[in-house]
Amino acid sequence: MKKFTPEHLASAARNAAAPLSLFRQVLTSVQEGIYLDSWSLDQDTFPLNTQAAWSVKKYRLHGGKQEGVEVIEVDNGRLRFTVVPTRGMSVLKVTSGDVRLGWDSPVKEVVHPQFINLESRGGLGWLEGFNEWMVRCGLEWSGHPGSDRFCTPRGDEVRRDLTLHGRIGNVPASHVEVVIEPGSTPRIHIRGRVEERMFHGPKLSLWTDISTELGSDSVRFDDAITNGDVHEQEFQILYHVNFGPPLLEAGSLFFGAIQRVESFNPHSARSAMDYRNYAGPQAGFVEQVYCLHPLAGADGRTECMLQNAQGDRGVSLAFPVAQFPYVTLWKNLAAPAEGYVTGIEPGTGFPYTRQDERKSGRVPKLAPNETRSFSLDVSIHPDRQGVQAASRRIQTIQGPLQPVIDPAPL
Amino acid sequence: MKKFTPEHLASAARNAAAPLSLFRQVLTSVQEGIYLDSWSLDQDTFPLNTQAAWSVKKYRLHGGKQEGVEVIEVDNGRLRFTVVPTRGMSVLKVTSGDVRLGWDSPVKEVVHPQFINLESRGGLGWLEGFNEWMVRCGLEWSGHPGSDRFCTPRGDEVRRDLTLHGRIGNVPASHVEVVIEPGSTPRIHIRGRVEERMFHGPKLSLWTDISTELGSDSVRFDDAITNGDVHEQEFQILYHVNFGPPLLEAGSLFFGAIQRVESFNPHSARSAMDYRNYAGPQAGFVEQVYCLHPLAGADGRTECMLQNAQGDRGVSLAFPVAQFPYVTLWKNLAAPAEGYVTGIEPGTGFPYTRQDERKSGRVPKLAPNETRSFSLDVSIHPDRQGVQAASRRIQTIQGPLQPVIDPAPL
Amino acid sequence: MKKFTPEHLASAARNAAAPLSLFRQVLTSVQEGIYLDSWSLDQDTFPLNTQAAWSVKKYRLHGGKQEGVEVIEVDNGRLRFTVVPTRGMSVLKVTSGDVRLGWDSPVKEVVHPQFINLESRGGLGWLEGFNEWMVRCGLEWSGHPGSDRFCTPRGDEVRRDLTLHGRIGNVPASHVEVVIEPGSTPRIHIRGRVEERMFHGPKLSLWTDISTELGSDSVRFDDAITNGDVHEQEFQILYHVNFGPPLLEAGSLFFGAIQRVESFNPHSARSAMDYRNYAGPQAGFVEQVYCLHPLAGADGRTECMLQNAQGDRGVSLAFPVAQFPYVTLWKNLAAPAEGYVTGIEPGTGFPYTRQDERKSGRVPKLAPNETRSFSLDVSIHPDRQGVQAASRRIQTIQGPLQPVIDPAPL
Repeated sequence: MKKFTPEHLASAARNAAAPLSLFRQVLTSVQEGIYLDSWSLDQDTFPLNTQAAWSVKKYRLHGGKQEGVEVIEVDNGRLRFTVVPTRGMSVLKVTSGDVRLGWDSPVKEVVHPQFINLESRGGLGWLEGFNEWMVRCGLEWSGHPGSDRFCTPRGDEVRRDLTLHGRIGNVPASHVEVVIEPGSTPRIHIRGRVEERMFHGPKLSLWTDISTELGSDSVRFDDAITNGDVHEQEFQILYHVNFGPPLLEAGSLFFGAIQRVESFNPHSARSAMDYRNYAGPQAGFVEQVYCLHPLAGADGRTECMLQNAQGDRGVSLAFPVAQFPYVTLWKNLAAPAEGYVTGIEPGTGFPYTRQDERKSGRVPKLAPNETRSFSLDVSIHPDRQGVQAASRRIQTIQGPLQPVIDPAPL
Repeated sequence: MKKFTPEHLASAARNAAAPLSLFRQVLTSVQEGIYLDSWSLDQDTFPLNTQAAWSVKKYRLHGGKQEGVEVIEVDNGRLRFTVVPTRGMSVLKVTSGDVRLGWDSPVKEVVHPQFINLESRGGLGWLEGFNEWMVRCGLEWSGHPGSDRFCTPRGDEVRRDLTLHGRIGNVPASHVEVVIEPGSTPRIHIRGRVEERMFHGPKLSLWTDISTELGSDSVRFDDAITNGDVHEQEFQILYHVNFGPPLLEAGSLFFGAIQRVESFNPHSARSAMDYRNYAGPQAGFVEQVYCLHPLAGADGRTECMLQNAQGDRGVSLAFPVAQFPYVTLWKNLAAPAEGYVTGIEPGTGFPYTRQDERKSGRVPKLAPNETRSFSLDVSIHPDRQGVQAASRRIQTIQGPLQPVIDPAPL
Repeated sequence: MKKFTPEHLASAARNAAAPLSLFRQVLTSVQEGIYLDSWSLDQDTFPLNTQAAWSVKKYRLHGGKQEGVEVIEVDNGRLRFTVVPTRGMSVLKVTSGDVRLGWDSPVKEVVHPQFINLESRGGLGWLEGFNEWMVRCGLEWSGHPGSDRFCTPRGDEVRRDLTLHGRIGNVPASHVEVVIEPGSTPRIHIRGRVEERMFHGPKLSLWTDISTELGSDSVRFDDAITNGDVHEQEFQILYHVNFGPPLLEAGSLFFGAIQRVESFNPHSARSAMDYRNYAGPQAGFVEQVYCLHPLAGADGRTECMLQNAQGDRGVSLAFPVAQFPYVTLWKNLAAPAEGYVTGIEPGTGFPYTRQDERKSGRVPKLAPNETRSFSLDVSIHPDRQGVQAASRRIQTIQGPLQPVIDPAPL
């Protein structure tokens, strides 16, 4: 599978006249002054080498707290997903056949950042917009709210009250484009650039790329974070990937190639031995969080899976362990009205406060102009064969090693 | 007067083909993806059984802090009012003949919530948008800003800095519709749904309904609050109904069927014996607040009135005491430029902090899926006869009982 | 040079039918319900007595954090500038020939206030939108964030956490108009009214007026602040005028008619003797700030200049010392990516916290309905002759007096 970097895209785009060249449509560019309020493309208007009835549609939502939110719907002919440029290129949901990746949050609207105050509720304002299948947490910080004391590049020691899961999920994208790779296996990319920049502060750019091969049952993230500063810059990123029904139900099971399982807190520790198993919804369920240290296969990659109770539907996340050395497993098996949901969250760390993460050596830094890539493959398994194949791949990575389940909290 | 519940409306709307059926036009629905940027209807385009030159108009405001605000103007042929969906279905003003319900706030624009930070100014950010005739305070909390310590449904004890008068007045409505009851006495309803929902937080829905009979001099609120959670949920609501000139002037008088009058604080206590009387504007006036315990008549309802100095113009508020057991009388008899205004504020409590209200047993709870209704009839009295009739109704409710005026602050 | 007051404009506008009358186009008026989403005018459509190919264009920006921002571009045939009504009538940049007034902030978008939370980052949220050539700081307060204890007009002593540089730069204008003076030397004005008003708070109005004579190399600010309250009202204003390349470079020089130079803090004091000289960009440069007390000439006016290293390009700021008794010189000679910039900031005070400024007697008050004017002339010097002429004017004001450079911090 050819790696498709921003640089490649850029160079290919420059050669747009070449045969089998990339198609590229910029929907938003603050630099070039481009902005399309609505836009669409499909197999009829732009025939590709496929039988798939694919389409891409961009439009705006209105009313309530979603007034003005931009969304992009992609249908690859089999699988559909919705990207939200206004909310940091989050992905609202994915559907394919009878499988839905996503969950039923008490938050029923795609909330525009204009209505979010991250500082409110003691730094928990982020929760007022939280309903996506996949929302990135970061970039300057991620994790639980709390006070942090740190040194700025200019040598000032400052104290800041950090808010839950950072800001990137509530920053509208400065650049949005659709890129289509034609050829024998056409692929649609939705790409966006989201910035965390300020004077006397971070200069972090996130290039997001979610793509899907026409007719396939999977999507791929190929993201890159760049430090535009002349100083080293701490950063954190965590992919908060969330699943409710139908994949989550009583009897669902988590699979992962795992070296070690730690508990986020004493409450979680009490159920640590049972961390892979899911119960049905229970009103007032107190969330359990496990800190997983994944194992890599020979190619450096690992895979996790959530399967339903019957074992005939599932979803896999596959990624390089060097990029995502930590996976947080979040179980919020509450009543449907509260949000019955589990998160499988690959990241550069765990969701403790940045202060605590720094002490544990889990806050990476980017050198000036350094870029770090983050890629994540998500595949839906629509049947027992697919689920079993994923299970075997995970077992192969796991090998004979038994995961250590540490009953004591981290 | 037939009670017109949301359920009734919904069922009637389903039978829209029946003779004399309801007319229903959805202007905004985030669920159904409906959104009309502007819309209007009147007697010419939709003839009803009336001589009244009625109309309904929806449009957007622009410029300054009111950029993007949606308003709905209703004219029943005699009385006009303006609803602001963008500000939680607040009512900006009501006019009929030479009577205006409303006041002249230093806030001159209908401020879009995007420009309000409720947390700013030590939790007083709400005051930067405060200029409505009627704004609801609530729902998760209401009253003065202050720190509150309470238990979440999941058993966490948390501390939160609550902001003045809660959030609902700065939440845009998720659903807005115009409903017209035809028949012999046609009635126009403006209905809206406003949500206070979040993950790990409240799931409160407010259905608002303000309606007016064509050609009449009154409006009616028929609101309902529903707890969508699987847990009990505290809530508070207070109808902040505000009057400036012409009804408020030196010599204006408050009438109410009152059991007991308490003073909000020592400053107010000094003028408690005079709580019914109004002086003219006075620069630097320090506001006085009285906590009224209303008496109900045989039908469980009470009535309050504000009349002008001549006693030939007035306005009445009538409501069930079981729904609104408390009425706050707010006197801010400051200079016109500061806001010369009085509030008559029926509510589930008084505007102390939630912490204090809870201690006093004035923070009600809703069971899971429980709905509580709040109805309020507001009538303009355009002449001495109307004022005197209201005065007699209030005296009948009061009966021989003398109100106790408690000089000590609550 | 005839003084052109708001009153003059208003009266002239009333006589629009008279020969050589003013042309006035209201673009936004919340009072009159006027709003033009886009608009333009130029020499072709509205011929003036000039050879200059002038134009005025108003439009909206889209995408990222600049979604919805309104800008007005003025070209006087020689010099161009961009006003941002959505950001308090700030001026993004000015260009003329090869001179650009402005700087390269790490903030790359014209940030809409809906995305700014002034309270965030310990009161430094203002920095997330800071990239203008000229942004006004004020009005209720300006300067560094910090806690302030003060008395309200109603006699309450309150404590407030004030945010960096106040709010006016993040308030959208309530009224915007283009005024053109025809005649032998036609002049274009962009005027706006920006409000800081709230209930139980300030009632300050700022009328801004930036104008330019066709074909000239200068712009003029004629602003006025009015206290609409019935009480005295403290206020602060500081014109944060910022310069990067090409005028700022290693070897650039500041000129001013100066009585006394104080250092903002001990760090700045160490380089106080060198305050006029500029070095090239240096990563991690810790900003230096000098508090200047300007000297006035016989007409009560003073002038400052920044010239480039060659001494063949420069810019002058000229203003009455009675209006602006203090000038802050801010040197942030950091790497280009961090923002290599210097600020020449005439104001009613220095940028200490309001608490500290009040103690030093630098927080003026406005009586009820009092208006204070602030005018500032900015001229680009495109050649050595212009730079030298400005230098001579400044020397004339300075006269024989040597500026006292106080090595100790204020």
